[in-house]
Amino acid sequence: MNLNEARKFARELDAKDPLASLRTRFDIPEGTLYFDGNSLGPLTFRSREVLHRTIEFEWRERLIRSWNEDWLAMPARVGNLIAPIIGAAQDTVICTDNTSINLHKALMAAVAMRADRSEIVVDINNFPTDIYIAQSVASQHSMKLVAVPADEIIGAINANTAVVTATHVDYRSANILDVEGITKAAHAHGALMVWDLAHTAGAVPFQATVLDVDFAVGCGYKYLNGGPGAPAFIYVAPRLLAESGQPLQGWWGHADPFEFEVGYRPAEGISRFLTGTANVLSMKSLEAALEVFTSVSLENLRKKSVSLTSLFVSLFDDHLAPAGFALGSPRDPESRGSHVALGFEGGKALVEAMAAEGIIADFRPPNLMRFGFAPLYNTHEEVVTLVERLLHH
Amino acid sequence: MNLNEARKFARELDAKDPLASLRTRFDIPEGTLYFDGNSLGPLTFRSREVLHRTIEFEWRERLIRSWNEDWLAMPARVGNLIAPIIGAAQDTVICTDNTSINLHKALMAAVAMRADRSEIVVDINNFPTDIYIAQSVASQHSMKLVAVPADEIIGAINANTAVVTATHVDYRSANILDVEGITKAAHAHGALMVWDLAHTAGAVPFQATVLDVDFAVGCGYKYLNGGPGAPAFIYVAPRLLAESGQPLQGWWGHADPFEFEVGYRPAEGISRFLTGTANVLSMKSLEAALEVFTSVSLENLRKKSVSLTSLFVSLFDDHLAPAGFALGSPRDPESRGSHVALGFEGGKALVEAMAAEGIIADFRPPNLMRFGFAPLYNTHEEVVTLVERLLHH
Repeated sequence: MNLNEARKFARELDAKDPLASLRTRFDIPEGTLYFDGNSLGPLTFRSREVLHRTIEFEWRERLIRSWNEDWLAMPARVGNLIAPIIGAAQDTVICTDNTSINLHKALMAAVAMRADRSEIVVDINNFPTDIYIAQSVASQHSMKLVAVPADEIIGAINANTAVVTATHVDYRSANILDVEGITKAAHAHGALMVWDLAHTAGAVPFQATVLDVDFAVGCGYKYLNGGPGAPAFIYVAPRLLAESGQPLQGWWGHADPFEFEVGYRPAEGISRFLTGTANVLSMKSLEAALEVFTSVSLENLRKKSVSLTSLFVSLFDDHLAPAGFALGSPRDPESRGSHVALGFEGGKALVEAMAAEGIIADFRPPNLMRFGFAPLYNTHEEVVTLVERLLHH
Repeated sequence: MNLNEARKFARELDAKDPLASLRTRFDIPEGTLYFDGNSLGPLTFRSREVLHRTIEFEWRERLIRSWNEDWLAMPARVGNLIAPIIGAAQDTVICTDNTSINLHKALMAAVAMRADRSEIVVDINNFPTDIYIAQSVASQHSMKLVAVPADEIIGAINANTAVVTATHVDYRSANILDVEGITKAAHAHGALMVWDLAHTAGAVPFQATVLDVDFAVGCGYKYLNGGPGAPAFIYVAPRLLAESGQPLQGWWGHADPFEFEVGYRPAEGISRFLTGTANVLSMKSLEAALEVFTSVSLENLRKKSVSLTSLFVSLFDDHLAPAGFALGSPRDPESRGSHVALGFEGGKALVEAMAAEGIIADFRPPNLMRFGFAPLYNTHEEVVTLVERLLHH
């Protein structure tokens, strides 16, 4: 398919896209083509509106009273907006801290429940912070860290395994891991399973309840569009709550924080995974951005995502492969998340040159260009424009 | 002094107050008398302006590029704005997470450096989250928690003590602890000292370097006026950095986070006490609010604070004591932080009734009304108005 035909085809796809109207919720600057929603989602009109109200009314005018009037309930409320996006039940997800801190909580809690075991299994291609955290927890508990490629995880799990942790969608390749196989293998050997959903939530369906995962954590500022450094979330299987404890306990996870009791008495449910004070501005922005997800089915979101990445891969075959680019993501859409990576020598300079023209992607060493295709706002025609620009490197 | 005379006297004090002009930096609603800056500082005009730019330019327009253009350097930059406020050297303070998470880091790091010891000493009247965290760390390391009143801390420190933790200014009484005596006692017995500066930073001077404290943590949303849930800070004595480790290690504390190395290689300095992604909106708001501190000496700030609380205590003696209120704070200004607590049966209902009229204080069980007098924006005349209102309960 030549690029003129591709553009025509893309316009047809955009014309019949059931999610097309959702782009109007986003305030993407005129002239910007944004393929980095996998790193930082763009501003929604609703986030701007809510932030304005938070600053002018809730902070300026109501001042301290806003804690009781709104903010105290926010981590649980936002958690309940995230829950359906990751296939979790109400009151099993809480919005708090950042992904790294939440992963510390999950791994520390998991290891405490399997203290008689000696190994933590981690995907060696996991996002580095996940590995650093697993290293830290392993070292503090004198456990061995077993780091293997994704397709060797199942084989690495045995009766010594305390906990297995991996990211559902690989941050470089967008490879979707065998979430069911790995979770089942962990459970078959009595180990606990901690999934990182940083590149999942908001773009790729996940079934926390159906898969019976033990812990999941994820990010508020990528496909959930919460804004820079928006707080993260943590899911804990309800069956574990009673026994799991909270390794980073604090007053916000207390059953009655404003009674200021000397003894720690954990909140009944997932709220015990809170520690300290929520950052209100960032969480408000995230809450506002999550509204868009109430008007879209995860099935349609996934269909659109696959349609965008598939068009890109098809144009890669016809145009970019001959031009010296290498596909760094799975060809099978079933195994591919919502971004596509291309290997290209000089990829860093190309990403920078494109950014100067308003076509924004990102780069991961040593040579990977990453293009995020966010089903809420990217169009098929943008995919064609991207390919055209890549050809003129 | 009757209240008419008091008002005249207060106006004279306000007229010659060298900090009087700083109130114009704050957008306090017309008709509001705000005595709760010890819980949540009010909005500054500068925070509003910076938040607007962060939302509209840095997030909306520059999108992911803002990380390199500004945000990555922010935790260290804001830490350096906080450092002089707590008597710390440049590059020894970092802005990150919330106070509870930072206290976990400090206590976990301290305990790891004194793993051969068996006790953690804590002020039993400390803010509850500090006690919960000490309990948690003690329990995870099979140490004993020794909780005693502030004036018994020195006597409780011995060769078994791994770490001592207390809050410099008591959150209820505003009692200023014997920071020098306690720190020296800890060090004399080879223990480490962790100070919580939640009610100190921005209102009461502190000398981290001179006192040679080991760790300090504190809060961005009280007297520093960063906004609801603004991030907190952590100070670590430079002499400890090499050996202290970082118990909640993550990619933001890596020497080169965007090289995405599999192995954790901690940053050289205090940056290693970062874990995950900074919440940009809240930290930007804090950074903007901190500008006011560059135009005021800590000595003048303290003088004004003492002047405000002393006027209140003097009017308490003449008017409030006879009306049934009890002083819940030290009478000696040298031992008193920047708020004054009054015991009063029915205090909760009175605080609520006053809030409905725009006179805002807060309440801590069982019967303490707390009045924060923030030297940056409260006036002496407001103190008189407050006393008048309390008399008409």
